[in-house]
Amino acid sequence: MSGSTFGELFRVTNFGESHGVAIGCVIDGCPPGLALSEADIQIELDRRRPGTSRHVTQRNEPDAVEILSGVYEGLTTGTPIALLIRNTDQRSKDYGNILDTFRPGHADYTYWRKYGLRDPRGGGRSSARLTAPMVAAGAVARKWLKEHRGTTFVGWMSQLGDIAIPFVDEAQIPLNPFFAPNADVVPALEARMDELRKAGDSCGARIEVIARGMPVGLGQPLFDKLDADIAYAMMGVNAVKGVEIGAGFASVAQHGSEHGDELTPAGFVGNNAGGVLGGISTGQDLRVSIAIKPTSSIRTPRRSIDRTGQPTVVETFGRHDPCVGIRATPIVEAMLALVVMDHVLAHRAQCGDVALDMPPIAASAPRD
Amino acid sequence: MSGSTFGELFRVTNFGESHGVAIGCVIDGCPPGLALSEADIQIELDRRRPGTSRHVTQRNEPDAVEILSGVYEGLTTGTPIALLIRNTDQRSKDYGNILDTFRPGHADYTYWRKYGLRDPRGGGRSSARLTAPMVAAGAVARKWLKEHRGTTFVGWMSQLGDIAIPFVDEAQIPLNPFFAPNADVVPALEARMDELRKAGDSCGARIEVIARGMPVGLGQPLFDKLDADIAYAMMGVNAVKGVEIGAGFASVAQHGSEHGDELTPAGFVGNNAGGVLGGISTGQDLRVSIAIKPTSSIRTPRRSIDRTGQPTVVETFGRHDPCVGIRATPIVEAMLALVVMDHVLAHRAQCGDVALDMPPIAASAPRD
Amino acid sequence: MSGSTFGELFRVTNFGESHGVAIGCVIDGCPPGLALSEADIQIELDRRRPGTSRHVTQRNEPDAVEILSGVYEGLTTGTPIALLIRNTDQRSKDYGNILDTFRPGHADYTYWRKYGLRDPRGGGRSSARLTAPMVAAGAVARKWLKEHRGTTFVGWMSQLGDIAIPFVDEAQIPLNPFFAPNADVVPALEARMDELRKAGDSCGARIEVIARGMPVGLGQPLFDKLDADIAYAMMGVNAVKGVEIGAGFASVAQHGSEHGDELTPAGFVGNNAGGVLGGISTGQDLRVSIAIKPTSSIRTPRRSIDRTGQPTVVETFGRHDPCVGIRATPIVEAMLALVVMDHVLAHRAQCGDVALDMPPIAASAPRD
Amino acid sequence: MSGSTFGELFRVTNFGESHGVAIGCVIDGCPPGLALSEADIQIELDRRRPGTSRHVTQRNEPDAVEILSGVYEGLTTGTPIALLIRNTDQRSKDYGNILDTFRPGHADYTYWRKYGLRDPRGGGRSSARLTAPMVAAGAVARKWLKEHRGTTFVGWMSQLGDIAIPFVDEAQIPLNPFFAPNADVVPALEARMDELRKAGDSCGARIEVIARGMPVGLGQPLFDKLDADIAYAMMGVNAVKGVEIGAGFASVAQHGSEHGDELTPAGFVGNNAGGVLGGISTGQDLRVSIAIKPTSSIRTPRRSIDRTGQPTVVETFGRHDPCVGIRATPIVEAMLALVVMDHVLAHRAQCGDVALDMPPIAASAPRD
Repeated sequence: MSGSTFGELFRVTNFGESHGVAIGCVIDGCPPGLALSEADIQIELDRRRPGTSRHVTQRNEPDAVEILSGVYEGLTTGTPIALLIRNTDQRSKDYGNILDTFRPGHADYTYWRKYGLRDPRGGGRSSARLTAPMVAAGAVARKWLKEHRGTTFVGWMSQLGDIAIPFVDEAQIPLNPFFAPNADVVPALEARMDELRKAGDSCGARIEVIARGMPVGLGQPLFDKLDADIAYAMMGVNAVKGVEIGAGFASVAQHGSEHGDELTPAGFVGNNAGGVLGGISTGQDLRVSIAIKPTSSIRTPRRSIDRTGQPTVVETFGRHDPCVGIRATPIVEAMLALVVMDHVLAHRAQCGDVALDMPPIAASAPRD
Repeated sequence: MSGSTFGELFRVTNFGESHGVAIGCVIDGCPPGLALSEADIQIELDRRRPGTSRHVTQRNEPDAVEILSGVYEGLTTGTPIALLIRNTDQRSKDYGNILDTFRPGHADYTYWRKYGLRDPRGGGRSSARLTAPMVAAGAVARKWLKEHRGTTFVGWMSQLGDIAIPFVDEAQIPLNPFFAPNADVVPALEARMDELRKAGDSCGARIEVIARGMPVGLGQPLFDKLDADIAYAMMGVNAVKGVEIGAGFASVAQHGSEHGDELTPAGFVGNNAGGVLGGISTGQDLRVSIAIKPTSSIRTPRRSIDRTGQPTVVETFGRHDPCVGIRATPIVEAMLALVVMDHVLAHRAQCGDVALDMPPIAASAPRD
Repeated sequence: MSGSTFGELFRVTNFGESHGVAIGCVIDGCPPGLALSEADIQIELDRRRPGTSRHVTQRNEPDAVEILSGVYEGLTTGTPIALLIRNTDQRSKDYGNILDTFRPGHADYTYWRKYGLRDPRGGGRSSARLTAPMVAAGAVARKWLKEHRGTTFVGWMSQLGDIAIPFVDEAQIPLNPFFAPNADVVPALEARMDELRKAGDSCGARIEVIARGMPVGLGQPLFDKLDADIAYAMMGVNAVKGVEIGAGFASVAQHGSEHGDELTPAGFVGNNAGGVLGGISTGQDLRVSIAIKPTSSIRTPRRSIDRTGQPTVVETFGRHDPCVGIRATPIVEAMLALVVMDHVLAHRAQCGDVALDMPPIAASAPRD
Repeated sequence: MSGSTFGELFRVTNFGESHGVAIGCVIDGCPPGLALSEADIQIELDRRRPGTSRHVTQRNEPDAVEILSGVYEGLTTGTPIALLIRNTDQRSKDYGNILDTFRPGHADYTYWRKYGLRDPRGGGRSSARLTAPMVAAGAVARKWLKEHRGTTFVGWMSQLGDIAIPFVDEAQIPLNPFFAPNADVVPALEARMDELRKAGDSCGARIEVIARGMPVGLGQPLFDKLDADIAYAMMGVNAVKGVEIGAGFASVAQHGSEHGDELTPAGFVGNNAGGVLGGISTGQDLRVSIAIKPTSSIRTPRRSIDRTGQPTVVETFGRHDPCVGIRATPIVEAMLALVVMDHVLAHRAQCGDVALDMPPIAASAPRD
C-alpha cells in the first residue's frame, strides 16, 4: 500500500516527477554476483525513449541512467541498486494553463482531491515518464532471468485505435516505431497517427506480451497468484483499463471441453490458460493482453471545471504522445519480468532451489 | 507474497482446504467500535452458499460462521477477528480418481509441480470454496463502509456462455439464482445450464460489479493504484481470466475526445473512467467487469497424463458447478469491498480523516 | 504494522483473547513436505502450560492444539497451517473489579485509550496467554530447522528477582519448574516465590536463549538485521523491557581489542558478538538475554484512577503468575526459532539454496 | 525482510555504500502539505557529520543533501521524497589491506559469507555512514511530529567506556562533541579518547533517548508493539548490542509493587514503563537506552584468517571513529522519530484522527 514500491522480494522503489530534478528507483533484493553495467540498462531505456519518431512526444531526453550503488567491480553485491535518471528537457511553462483546471480523463482532478495540492508540471507523479525507472529495473530482472532461468520476454502492439494488427513476424517488431509484428500494416498506423495529430485527438491501443522459458510452479495459491500479480502490474501502467490472461474475455463463451488445455507426454495442447492454472505457472508461455486508453491530454477543447468549481473549457498544448500505447511495449515487458523475478525468489524461499524430481512433461514443453 | 493474506491495513488471512477440517480467516486492522454479530456475516455467506439451486454444486453445507475473537459485547475491539467455518459435507471419495492424474484446465498439475505433493480432496486449497472466508471478511468491510462512508456494492451477471444478459432492473438480481438483472432472460439461462449438465460440459460467465457512494481520493499514485488493486483482487478469484475497469477493452478504439469524461459543476459527464483516474478514485461509481472461464471439472473425457508422465484419459465425477460464475457475484462484491476498505484506511493514514475543504463538485455527483 | 502477523516469509498470524472462545494462529509459507502432527506441537505447548507448579497461574487448561489445515497425510502441503486452541477454563468474574479501573503497570489503560473500548476478561488480547500460539508456531519452525539445518534452541532462567542463577548444567533445565540450569539454587527460588505469593507481590526475571548449529549469512545488512529482528521478537513477548545480544550492555565498557572476537582456522575465539556481525549470522551460537518485568496484577493495593478520571485503589485478585518469567523460556525459544526460520527462507530467496564454496572456517566452529 | 526499507506507512528505503557514488533514501507515505526545504534536513545531518572534532573520523564531507522529488513549491506533495547525498571524500586505498582478511568484530566476514563477494571500500554497506540517510529521513518525521503532534526528541550520552556521565543539564548537550548533558565530565571524556587514539584501541558507549509530547495509544497489541519496533530500530543502528525501555534490565530485580507506575488524576507517578504498557504508548515520555560496542576497526594487531582460511594478523589503518557512540545521538533520535511517525500514521489508519473523548488524565501528564 506504500504506493511506490513494487514487488516483495525483488523490490523496486520508484521516485520522481516528470518535471522535477530527477526520476529513478532503488532495487532491493537482487541476487549477488550478477554482472551489471549501465549499458545493460540503457539498452532497454532507449527502447522506450521519447523523441524517437514523429508519433511520440517530442520531449528530447537521453534518459541516461547512472548506477549509484549496489554494484562493485561490475557485479551486483546483493545490496540496493539505486538508479538515477536526471530530467533534462522540462518545459513546465507548456503546462501553465492546466494549473487551475482539470483535464478530462486525467489524474489532475484526483491528485488535487487526494492531497489538497499537486505538482502540475508535466503531470507530476502521474506522468508516464515514471515508467522509465521500471524499465530500468526490469532490465536487471531480465538479465538475471535470462542467465539463470532462460526466461525471456517479448511484447508487441496488436491493435491501434480500431486498426487490428495481425501477428505475422516477430522479427518485424523492432523495425518500426509501433512495435508492430507486421510490416504491411505500418503505413496505415502512420497515417492514422498523422491524422490524429492533425485533429488534436488521440487513440488507444492493445498490447500483447509473453514470457518464454517459464519455470513451472511460480505463484501462490490464493492471493499473489501469478496472474493476479500480473494484472496488478499491468493495471499499474499508465492508461491501462483492461487485462487478460490467456483466452481472457473469450473464455466466457468457451465450453470447458474447449477451454481446458489437454496434457500429453509432449506437453500441453493449446494455451487458453495463458501459462497459469490456479494462479501457478504451468511452464507454458505466459500470455498477457492489455487495453490502453487514449491519451487525455489533447488539443480538442473539452468541458471542465476550475478549482473553485466554475465551468471552464480545457485545451492541452505541450508535448504529448497521441497514443501512449506506442511506447508501452518495453514497459509491459519490464513489468512482466519484474513479476516473474519476484515469484522466482518467492518460490525458492519456500520450496528451495533444487528442481524437484518430476516426470517427463517438460517445463519447456510445446507452446503455441 | 505470502499467498494467503489480502490487504495491507484491513488484512485478511485465509486458511483451509475444501475437504479439510475447516476453512476460515483472520481479519486484522478492523476499526474498533463496529457493531458486529455472526448474523451480519451469515447473510452474505448464504448468498454464495452451495446447494441453493439445481444449477450449482449439490454439496450441502450450512457454511455457518463462528466468530472466535475480536468482538466483545457486540462491538469490534480493534484486535483480530477470527472467523471459522467447519466443513461438514466432504465426500472425498468422489475425487479418488483424480489423485494420480491432472484435470485439463485445473490446478491439479501446477500444485503438484510447485510443492511436490498436493491435497487432492475437492481440489484442496485451489477450490472455489476458499472464497467463502473472503465473503465473510467482505461482510465486515461492507458493514463498516456503509455505516461510515455510505459506500455500497452491487454485482450481477451480464453474460452466461454466449448469452448476453442486458441490464434491465437491479431489483431482479436477488430474485433468480443467476444474479441476473433481467427476469426475461432467466428461462434461457436455465435451459442452457440444463443442457450443459446433461452434456457433461461447462461454460464461462461475465460478472459486473460497482461501488456507489465512493470517497474521492482513494488509491496510490504509482503502485497500489485503486484499479491495480482491484485487478489483483478480481484475478485472485478462482477462474477469472480478464478484468476491465470502466470502458475497459472498448477504450482501445475510443478517441481521447470521446473517452475522457468531462467535468461540470454538477459532476462528471459519463464514466468511461470507471471511477478511477491516475489510480485514484474520482467519486464516480467504481465499475468493474470480469471474465470467468468455464469450470475445468467436467464429465467429458479429456486427454491428460498421470504422475509418471504416461498418457491417460480423465473424466471428472463428483459435485461441481457447471458454471462457477453463477455463485461469483457475492464473491466479487466482497473482494471489491475489501479493496475499498483497505484504501480508506490507507488514505486516512497519510492524509487524515477530516475532509479537505474543496469546491462544490460533489463526490456524489451524477453517475451513469 | 498489522500488529498480529509475525514474520515475512514464514508468517504467523495470531488471534484470540485470554477469555474468548479460542486462541490460535495461521502459519503461512511453511515449506512443503515436513512431517507434522499435533503431537509435535503439543510437546512444546505443554512446556509453557499453566497450572504445572504452585509457582504459576492455577488456571488449568490442557491447551490442546488442533491442526485445521495445511497438513495432508501427515505432511505439510505448503499452504496455510491453521492451529486452534479452545479456551476452556475462563473465570472472567475474577476480573470483574478491574473493568472500570486500570492496574498500574498493565495494558488496561493503554488499550482503553487506543481503542475507546476493551475486552477486560483476563487481560483480553494483552494476556500472556497469547504467546501459546507462538509456541505452537515455533514448534513447526523448530522441527524444520532441526531436520533441514541442524539448528536447535535452548533457553534458561539466569536470574529471578535479585537471585542470580549461575549456569551449571544444561541437563537440569527441564527438571525444575523454573527452567534453571542449576539444581542447587532451586530451593531458594521456591522460597522466594512462596514469599512473594504470600506478600501479594511479584518479581522480574532474566532469561537467556541460544541457537546452536546456526547457518552463516542469515540477516539483512541495514534493516531486518538478524539481531534487530531478534530484539523485535523478544520485545514483543509480554513484560520484556530489555534485550541484549552477545556481550550486550557489558560491551559499553569493553575495549575494541577485547570485544572483537578473533578468527582462527579453527573458528572464532570467544562470542562477544553473540553470533551476529553487521546484522548477519557468523555461524557462532546466537546468544540472547532478556529482562522481564514483575507481573502487574498483584494483590498489593495501589493507587489508580477510574474511567471517569477519579482516584481509586486497585487490588488484583484472580489467578496470576507472580513471575511471568517462570514460563517464559519455551516462549523465547519459540520466538528465536521463528526469527531464524524467517531468515533462512529470506536468505535462500536472494542467495539460493546451494552452499557457497567457502574456505575451511566452519559454520560449526568452536563456540563458547 | 527487504533489508533496506524501514517503516510500513512512513517508509524509508535506504541505498548506498560508504565509498560508492552516493548514499540516500526515498521516503514514501509522508503526509502532503508539510513545509520542507533542504535546510530543514541539513541541520540534522550537520549534527552527525564527520570531521567536527578530533574525536571522530577525520573524513571530511559536507554531507550536503539534495531533495530530488516529492516537494513542490516548498510543500510535500504526498509522493516519494528522494534524498541524495553524494560521497566526496572517499579514500578507498586506506582500506586496501582488508580486502582479503576479516577484521575481528566487523561485518567483513559475514558479508563475504552471505553474498560470496563484498564491496570492501570503507566497509561498503556495513559502514555507519549509511545512518546519514536515516538522520535525513528522521528530520522530515521530526518536523511533521513537532508541528502536528507537539512531539520532540532528545538524546544524550550517559556512559563512555567505563566513565558514567551523570545527567546534569540538558542545555549542555549541544555544547560538547559527546552530546554529554554534563560539562564537568567532558575533560575526562576527552582525555579518554586521546588515550584510546594513542593506544590504537576503541571503546563503547551508552546512549539515552526520550520522546516528549507523546500521543497516547500508539503501538499494536501483539507484534509491532511500540517498544518492539523501537528495539528493532535501535538494534538496526550500527554497533548496538543492547536495548532497554524504561527500567530495562533493572526491572528484573524490582517488585511489582515498585515497578508498576501508579496513576493519579494528575498523571502517572514515575516512569518505569518508559512510556509503553502492553506495547502501546501511555502518553508519558518514551525512555530508551542503548549499548554501543567498541569500534572494530582498530590499529591494535589481532588474529584473523584470510579468504583461503589461512591464519593472519589484521591491523586497521584509515580514518575511524574510536567510539562510534560519539556521533550516535542524532542517529538514535532520528530512529525513534521514524518509529513514532510510522505509528502515528498506523494509529490513524485504524482508529481515525479525531481524539477520543476521554477523562482528564492528560497525555501530557507529569513525567519524570
